[in-house]
Amino acid sequence: MTQSTKVVPSLREAIRQSGLCDGMTISFHHHLREGDRVLLAVLAECSSMGIKDLTVNASAIMGCYRPIIDFIRDGTVRGIECNFMHAQVGHAISRGVLEREVIFRSHGGRPAAMDRGESSLDVAFVVASAADTCGNCNGKEGKAAFGSIGYAMPDAEHAEHVVVVTDELFEYPLINASISEELVDAVVVIDSIGDPSRIMSGTTRVTRDPIGLLIAEQAAKAISASGLLRDGFTFQTGAGGTSLAVAQYLGELMREMGITGRFASGGITGLLVQLLQEGLFETLLDVQCFDREAVQSIATCKCHGEISARRYASPTAKSAVVDHLDVVILGATEIDTDFNVNVHTDSNGVIMGGSGGHSDTAAGAKLSIIVAPLIRARLPLIVDRVGTISTPGKDVDLLVTQYGLACNPRRIELSARLKQAGLPVVQIHDLKAKAESITGVPARIVPKGRSVARVISRDGALLDEIPMIKD
Amino acid sequence: MTQSTKVVPSLREAIRQSGLCDGMTISFHHHLREGDRVLLAVLAECSSMGIKDLTVNASAIMGCYRPIIDFIRDGTVRGIECNFMHAQVGHAISRGVLEREVIFRSHGGRPAAMDRGESSLDVAFVVASAADTCGNCNGKEGKAAFGSIGYAMPDAEHAEHVVVVTDELFEYPLINASISEELVDAVVVIDSIGDPSRIMSGTTRVTRDPIGLLIAEQAAKAISASGLLRDGFTFQTGAGGTSLAVAQYLGELMREMGITGRFASGGITGLLVQLLQEGLFETLLDVQCFDREAVQSIATCKCHGEISARRYASPTAKSAVVDHLDVVILGATEIDTDFNVNVHTDSNGVIMGGSGGHSDTAAGAKLSIIVAPLIRARLPLIVDRVGTISTPGKDVDLLVTQYGLACNPRRIELSARLKQAGLPVVQIHDLKAKAESITGVPARIVPKGRSVARVISRDGALLDEIPMIKD
Repeated sequence: MTQSTKVVPSLREAIRQSGLCDGMTISFHHHLREGDRVLLAVLAECSSMGIKDLTVNASAIMGCYRPIIDFIRDGTVRGIECNFMHAQVGHAISRGVLEREVIFRSHGGRPAAMDRGESSLDVAFVVASAADTCGNCNGKEGKAAFGSIGYAMPDAEHAEHVVVVTDELFEYPLINASISEELVDAVVVIDSIGDPSRIMSGTTRVTRDPIGLLIAEQAAKAISASGLLRDGFTFQTGAGGTSLAVAQYLGELMREMGITGRFASGGITGLLVQLLQEGLFETLLDVQCFDREAVQSIATCKCHGEISARRYASPTAKSAVVDHLDVVILGATEIDTDFNVNVHTDSNGVIMGGSGGHSDTAAGAKLSIIVAPLIRARLPLIVDRVGTISTPGKDVDLLVTQYGLACNPRRIELSARLKQAGLPVVQIHDLKAKAESITGVPARIVPKGRSVARVISRDGALLDEIPMIKD
Repeated sequence: MTQSTKVVPSLREAIRQSGLCDGMTISFHHHLREGDRVLLAVLAECSSMGIKDLTVNASAIMGCYRPIIDFIRDGTVRGIECNFMHAQVGHAISRGVLEREVIFRSHGGRPAAMDRGESSLDVAFVVASAADTCGNCNGKEGKAAFGSIGYAMPDAEHAEHVVVVTDELFEYPLINASISEELVDAVVVIDSIGDPSRIMSGTTRVTRDPIGLLIAEQAAKAISASGLLRDGFTFQTGAGGTSLAVAQYLGELMREMGITGRFASGGITGLLVQLLQEGLFETLLDVQCFDREAVQSIATCKCHGEISARRYASPTAKSAVVDHLDVVILGATEIDTDFNVNVHTDSNGVIMGGSGGHSDTAAGAKLSIIVAPLIRARLPLIVDRVGTISTPGKDVDLLVTQYGLACNPRRIELSARLKQAGLPVVQIHDLKAKAESITGVPARIVPKGRSVARVISRDGALLDEIPMIKD
């Protein structure tokens, strides 16, 4: 007979009991996205407790975490590891606010680094919309339900000490637990873990932009022409407007052709839920819910399954969902003539993103397609060498723009299929020239300072470094 | 993009690919109980492949595994580790067929030993009634569905190499996976993993024996008198006839008193499913299904949850289900005047059982009750010193027999409550004298040979040794 409850009265007390001290690593996950209130609440407590030099290992640094800059300045935070960083924080990092380099990984690379012992967590803060008194918890129930809690699962397994933070306490046992009491040391109930209405932020609606729609339509046709669109088809797309439009066009094609897809995976949106409900996909494998429809679906639909970040994408898994993908649709801020893709930095070299599952899915999928307009803000998409390599060109198969499709030269047979289907296949160099004929050749940004971030591949190797920007 | 299937054509090929060689440890679980066909099939292949000196680490050695003795004799098997051993095999072990001592653990101690690095598995054979081509699997679907696969979960996590053996292959992804593809190296499809109708073997019906019923009624009254029978009550009982009768009487009491229990746990029977359906318990936490009703319920009922052996009972878990038990009902072959209980050996010292979850639940529950007739086969239940300590007396609170109830002297306040309720509380020495007045004092069995088995406590300490028996 041991303790019958792990509930501690406050976040401060939970931090105290965890033994957290200077120099340790704390972890977070971003399922509440721009609505999350826990990361900053924890840092505020740490700061007021005088704890210094923490490393924050978070699945993503969202825009709402901008005050983390204050905690860097006051010495509470000394290191950041993440898979994505919003420009709101990225701008300050690129300007050197953090002395130590940020470590960027991917959604699969993050749990892999834990498995390989390259990344260790002292205290994990698991944000749960429902938890019982002993830490069985999920994101599917409770007033702030956010759906899948997949990114937090490896943290709970690996961290020395695990604190579940919730705003809705359930009686023991919470039967539908995504993370088990086995792994949990303490439970803290706070007023609000966050605002789930802010999960859907910015990028989760089908584009209405005619260029985006044209690109999406071409991408859907390319998938059809590739030979992969058949019964049992497996698919992932992002939550960007053009990526969603691809899913919409693809749905139309599948309807016409009478094709049933086996699964769609990744971050799940209402659009994919609709395709599931219509029977165009048999199952959804969900590491993160992007909107209310997805949150409702994962809580109720047996065909909508929750997966951990490791099962989703880790190279240390004996197999992962990304390994079973036929097609993934991805974005890019830049792509170079070797098909390397940048999703970390903007054209000025300033941090404004990160891989997320980009490099994982590109490596796993049979066909990885980059959809992007050839010109953005008067700047060409295609460059000689991307500012940051987020996903290596060897894993990128096809670029679709409004001016044509460019195949990776490694994919000769894909190119032939697309041409046979009458799609406008061109060389990536020609697309680059086309863009430059409109915009001119932009002045090349020359790296100006020390490295402020390291991009680590899913296999643990250094992919690139991001230099500091001086205004 | 990696392999899209892990299916290998035969058990033999799976063994070959696993790299299994002389001296290694292979693991099994016993959810199909007396219907399991996989353990012997694997050993037969190993034997015919000339692999020697294997250690078999199985959650239980069932009676149907009797031919394992042949594999000991031919040198295929050199070691056995288990939580339970049926007399069919126990007799041979007690007579010294195996040179090396058997290691007995408990259902919680087994995963704990893996977590602590005291027990390592080279190849785990996970028997699944449903599996997909990449190893996502469960015991809830498929023609040989057996329900919870809880004992196999730690094996899948810890083993170097994991082989899923199924007789019903599903399309990827099996969405309701209890064990994930992350952990699985190979999938083998065989004709039959076993006969699920033989899961229910012997001990899963309410007793009709009047003595058993009397004991059960007294035990239920004791629970009521203990003060623990209130809303939120938590309970576990075994699948023996008397234990089941306790659950039945308890159900009647709960109905009369208008009490709703929070959960019942452990091996789950149809009787507990009925109590769930009636609303007398809110949830079931299931590490093993004991009959068809339980198998059907876990596959369909949201309030009937599957738990791993670690979550069930491991002392290495940050908390486990057994830690939340109010009352557990347990059996005994012998109990001594210090309340130590033997469930490993019979009155002749021959191996015929094992702890299973006995010592785990006794340690975890607020009130652990032993129910047993005072005399069996003309032998008294109570002895000066049990032949084997399975569960230490410090964890046993109450003995209920047809001649009265004996409280552990540590539980003064429990004794007072029972007396106040008019229950016939007596000293354990008095019960012992009563039995001996009927049966006479049996001749004491003196250990006759080397140790053939070691009983390891859930915390990893040596609890007892079992000496060899010579005919």
